Amino acid sequence: MEPSRPTVILRPQPQSAARIFTPQARATLEERYEVVDLEHDDDPARLDEALPRAFAVIGQPDLDRDRLSRAERLRAICNVEGNFFPNVDYQACHEFGVHVLGCGPAYAQAVAEHALGLALDVARGISREDRAFRRGEETYVAAGNADAVLLRGSDIGLLGFGNLGRALHRLLHPFDATIRVYDPWLPESYLREHGVVPAALEEVLRRSRFLFVLATVTADSEHLLGGPQLDLLAPGTRLVLVSRAAVVDYDDLLPRVARGEILAAVDVWPEEPVPAGHPARGIDGLVFSGHRAGGIPAAFEQIGQMVLDDLDLIARGLPPVRMQVAARELVGRYRNRPVT
Amino acid sequence: MEPSRPTVILRPQPQSAARIFTPQARATLEERYEVVDLEHDDDPARLDEALPRAFAVIGQPDLDRDRLSRAERLRAICNVEGNFFPNVDYQACHEFGVHVLGCGPAYAQAVAEHALGLALDVARGISREDRAFRRGEETYVAAGNADAVLLRGSDIGLLGFGNLGRALHRLLHPFDATIRVYDPWLPESYLREHGVVPAALEEVLRRSRFLFVLATVTADSEHLLGGPQLDLLAPGTRLVLVSRAAVVDYDDLLPRVARGEILAAVDVWPEEPVPAGHPARGIDGLVFSGHRAGGIPAAFEQIGQMVLDDLDLIARGLPPVRMQVAARELVGRYRNRPVT
Amino acid sequence: MEPSRPTVILRPQPQSAARIFTPQARATLEERYEVVDLEHDDDPARLDEALPRAFAVIGQPDLDRDRLSRAERLRAICNVEGNFFPNVDYQACHEFGVHVLGCGPAYAQAVAEHALGLALDVARGISREDRAFRRGEETYVAAGNADAVLLRGSDIGLLGFGNLGRALHRLLHPFDATIRVYDPWLPESYLREHGVVPAALEEVLRRSRFLFVLATVTADSEHLLGGPQLDLLAPGTRLVLVSRAAVVDYDDLLPRVARGEILAAVDVWPEEPVPAGHPARGIDGLVFSGHRAGGIPAAFEQIGQMVLDDLDLIARGLPPVRMQVAARELVGRYRNRPVT
Amino acid sequence: MEPSRPTVILRPQPQSAARIFTPQARATLEERYEVVDLEHDDDPARLDEALPRAFAVIGQPDLDRDRLSRAERLRAICNVEGNFFPNVDYQACHEFGVHVLGCGPAYAQAVAEHALGLALDVARGISREDRAFRRGEETYVAAGNADAVLLRGSDIGLLGFGNLGRALHRLLHPFDATIRVYDPWLPESYLREHGVVPAALEEVLRRSRFLFVLATVTADSEHLLGGPQLDLLAPGTRLVLVSRAAVVDYDDLLPRVARGEILAAVDVWPEEPVPAGHPARGIDGLVFSGHRAGGIPAAFEQIGQMVLDDLDLIARGLPPVRMQVAARELVGRYRNRPVT
Repeated sequence: MEPSRPTVILRPQPQSAARIFTPQARATLEERYEVVDLEHDDDPARLDEALPRAFAVIGQPDLDRDRLSRAERLRAICNVEGNFFPNVDYQACHEFGVHVLGCGPAYAQAVAEHALGLALDVARGISREDRAFRRGEETYVAAGNADAVLLRGSDIGLLGFGNLGRALHRLLHPFDATIRVYDPWLPESYLREHGVVPAALEEVLRRSRFLFVLATVTADSEHLLGGPQLDLLAPGTRLVLVSRAAVVDYDDLLPRVARGEILAAVDVWPEEPVPAGHPARGIDGLVFSGHRAGGIPAAFEQIGQMVLDDLDLIARGLPPVRMQVAARELVGRYRNRPVT
Repeated sequence: MEPSRPTVILRPQPQSAARIFTPQARATLEERYEVVDLEHDDDPARLDEALPRAFAVIGQPDLDRDRLSRAERLRAICNVEGNFFPNVDYQACHEFGVHVLGCGPAYAQAVAEHALGLALDVARGISREDRAFRRGEETYVAAGNADAVLLRGSDIGLLGFGNLGRALHRLLHPFDATIRVYDPWLPESYLREHGVVPAALEEVLRRSRFLFVLATVTADSEHLLGGPQLDLLAPGTRLVLVSRAAVVDYDDLLPRVARGEILAAVDVWPEEPVPAGHPARGIDGLVFSGHRAGGIPAAFEQIGQMVLDDLDLIARGLPPVRMQVAARELVGRYRNRPVT
Repeated sequence: MEPSRPTVILRPQPQSAARIFTPQARATLEERYEVVDLEHDDDPARLDEALPRAFAVIGQPDLDRDRLSRAERLRAICNVEGNFFPNVDYQACHEFGVHVLGCGPAYAQAVAEHALGLALDVARGISREDRAFRRGEETYVAAGNADAVLLRGSDIGLLGFGNLGRALHRLLHPFDATIRVYDPWLPESYLREHGVVPAALEEVLRRSRFLFVLATVTADSEHLLGGPQLDLLAPGTRLVLVSRAAVVDYDDLLPRVARGEILAAVDVWPEEPVPAGHPARGIDGLVFSGHRAGGIPAAFEQIGQMVLDDLDLIARGLPPVRMQVAARELVGRYRNRPVT
Repeated sequence: MEPSRPTVILRPQPQSAARIFTPQARATLEERYEVVDLEHDDDPARLDEALPRAFAVIGQPDLDRDRLSRAERLRAICNVEGNFFPNVDYQACHEFGVHVLGCGPAYAQAVAEHALGLALDVARGISREDRAFRRGEETYVAAGNADAVLLRGSDIGLLGFGNLGRALHRLLHPFDATIRVYDPWLPESYLREHGVVPAALEEVLRRSRFLFVLATVTADSEHLLGGPQLDLLAPGTRLVLVSRAAVVDYDDLLPRVARGEILAAVDVWPEEPVPAGHPARGIDGLVFSGHRAGGIPAAFEQIGQMVLDDLDLIARGLPPVRMQVAARELVGRYRNRPVT
């Protein structure tokens, strides 16, 4: 008798299976595992029926302690969207030896490249001059470059040094900049080992000419940047905001950009879509982006590949290495909203 | 008696002395040298009078063999604009032991950062989505990312691997891309030592997803990219053009971008300013830039600093190391136009 | 009333507290925590008494499930020696939410630098020529360099890509080598992302001119390199062995080095100390090292600093980031012997 | 009629043609050029006969102004040994438009790897412990590591930042060290752009824990390191000497190493071979090397390849890029002795 394949429950919402699994990856998944596809089936009975034999869950259906206690063979829950919601009892997962795995690293490179692109845009006025050109009002050579600055050798600040910060730091390496990092979750030695300068928030704000906001949202980081903090920024500072809108108070930020005190590139918004007539839409010193930093095809496909790789390792009795093992201490702290 | 300071003739046109020398750098120049300031004095008699005692010329006034033969103490001509014009007898300079120095390296970092910014723009649609946002037609998350691509791991082509190519290559390093280079002036071993893949023009065109045009203009490189060459590009290729307009045939390039076959970011134009009603101005897949890649304040100031550094070395009997020693073989070949 | 400090049990054997904690680090430890110092006290009663209020254990005393079940406040066990022994019930630790932390990363840089030094020694005959010089038989210039080779551009193989492999890989980066890695615990995508070439064991052996043995010992890796494997090595291959002796069959290795088929540098031995009259001691093509790769003062002090950093994070409700979280799947597999 | 091939005079002494040209490279040379082989023919008449039609000379036969004036087609003199001797009138070469090319860069990687190997040896006692092992007096684990130090994060000093310094600097990059450089021929800005810290000699000596002597010999650098300078070194400093013996006063250096004040690795000696009974041969804290850093097979073959590459460029009317264009200002200053 053929040894039976492990069972995997696929319930990827709000992610879509077709987005993360290429046809070839999907075929590999089906080949290696007995897939219980609940993507279009909300009946809890189906989930309950499959759980006792499940080796892994792809997605994050409601999994309270009671349900988890019946999933005796469960080894992993693969979050394929990016945010951990409180509908899973993570504490119980840890007790029962179930890996809780996140897909954050899959987005990091995409976000880092977008963030660098935005920074170079506000450094050199790329989209501003593109608009001027289309209006027939472009300038040439030095005439349009009065406020253009180099990243090379500049003072750069990173708020947050998790997946995004580290991925961006890699890209910034050849710019020979002084990179200061504020991240209260990391010891100074860790930051120094990574080649950045640990610094207090105030110092990062005062001394950076480029400021990247890369922090996730917790109770501590909400409105980390309000008026008093933004007042510390030097005139002409370039601010790039690509992580979470709740970290910044937009009512304090936008008027400063409108007045030309600082330049900014913003990818996340307190309300998405931004209301049609929102006054921000007219600000010249702002580069607008619609929460586009991470969710690109290459990132989605990498999620599927990471899931396949790690399930394979776990099935072989090895630890996962590509998805991110969710820290017990943090998995309940995040206050990010799901993104679809 | 005080030993007299060496004489330096300052005649920076079409560059401006105030742009390349900060007040402090200018003070240093005046302190170390007897400066004969001809910036606003076109009288050839003044130049003729100063040449016999001149240690160096900053700029490129008319210097034929006859004049050079009278400049017995001349050790260096510092070109501070970027293009070598045929009004200097470079052959005579070499015979007489006069260094002919160029300021190209001062622009390289600025051009490289701009080129990377343009590449990330066309990779992710940064300026396109900024315009959509301003019109209230922005998309969010994955919706606007269908054609977004990563630089990381991509196939990148560089046409030209001089100052610009090398500076850009440094910035591309953390993207772990396969970088193919076409440069007929460099042996394959040189390119391999620099960590890039030497390739024929056709191969670079066929296989690159990002193509950077960084070549200077000579008789050989004029219209290096015409219709037949552009036809080799894969659909969706991102082309970034930051060196010289004459390298590309715009009548072949622009329609291909207008039809959406490729995306492009263009910093140099066959005619500058571009005519007001030029149809290119409406092309959505184009990022427009007005010859702004190199001429930023930081680059200009670096020219002044390089001049000071190298004159100091030469005065001490040492070879210059910061400006670029113009190759005898090339100085007469360039066909670039002066840029002001 | 003063809030009481968390209790930390210090029982570092076979490590020594004085070696890992500088006086300043020890003072910090005492200041932040109530330290129960059992370094010189083997009475199990003292341990039993302290466990119920312990926040962390530094070291690895006997901790079975029963004992752990009484350690209700325990959050972390910090292994400060490097090998996980079976006297701790790691399964119970995971169930009870106790972090099991290893100090392997503290040794990685020291081992990597030693391994690179050994590789350059066998590449260039450094210690061999030093010995010849002392005997008055040295050669000069090209005469002694017939078999000298560059690391640059060479084919390098790594067996194992854990802490050691990754630390060494960082150091090898500027040598522009082709680096093939055999590590059956890691998916190919992981290796490719780190910039190395995943390869089967046989391919690594056949194609490497420098071969670094960096694997830990498990049932699978014992005598990974026996006669048939060593026969795959090209003549003149340089083998550097710095991880665990059990990975290689010395009865197969040493004769091949003695016959000059390959060159080797060996830091670990099946029996330590090596027997006095062991015939290996006369082999000219061998560089001898006495298990010295990792245990240097800087590594020991880093262990102490990592412990302080991570206990501080855990006490603040954050996850540890400097020590290595022991994988449930692996902690029981290692068969390394303690090193003192 | 077939266009005739350019004539190349081959007179490589004290280098050997067979060492720099592989059979394949030699075949290419013969194929592209009419080779006048004077390697074993000292008759000046042969040289005189060939010079008027010579396109290039490989080697450095006696070439005074008179002879050069008759070499009307001469475009390049390729020094394939490494030192410029005064038997060539370099001033006349420059006037006549003849490239004077050096092969220094071919040795740089070999020297840099050897220097790093020597530094790691003195950092970790690799050859010292190898000798102890052979005597049966080896120590294990921490016992032999009391004075072992990391390169990572250390203070490193480089005396000289020419080809050798830059090649070594590349290899040191992943060690995250603070690298101070003393090089009076280079402006501070140049050093800073290369990512090192410009410093006065005294500061480099006082603050470095690893000191690399990489300077060439001129009137200014003879005995750059005598007693007063060596007294500035901190106890336990590791000194690596791989450039030229004349830079250091050995009568001051060796006693300090013998007394254990500093550790040293020395590749060059004031007299080579070192006299048989020289007392230095017994010093335990010294690593001995017999002028072996640069002259390895890979370096020699690279010289031949560089010659072929650059002759090809020059024949095509392009500037050489692989050999080093000898600076007019320096070519007469070097006081290095030929090495064979």
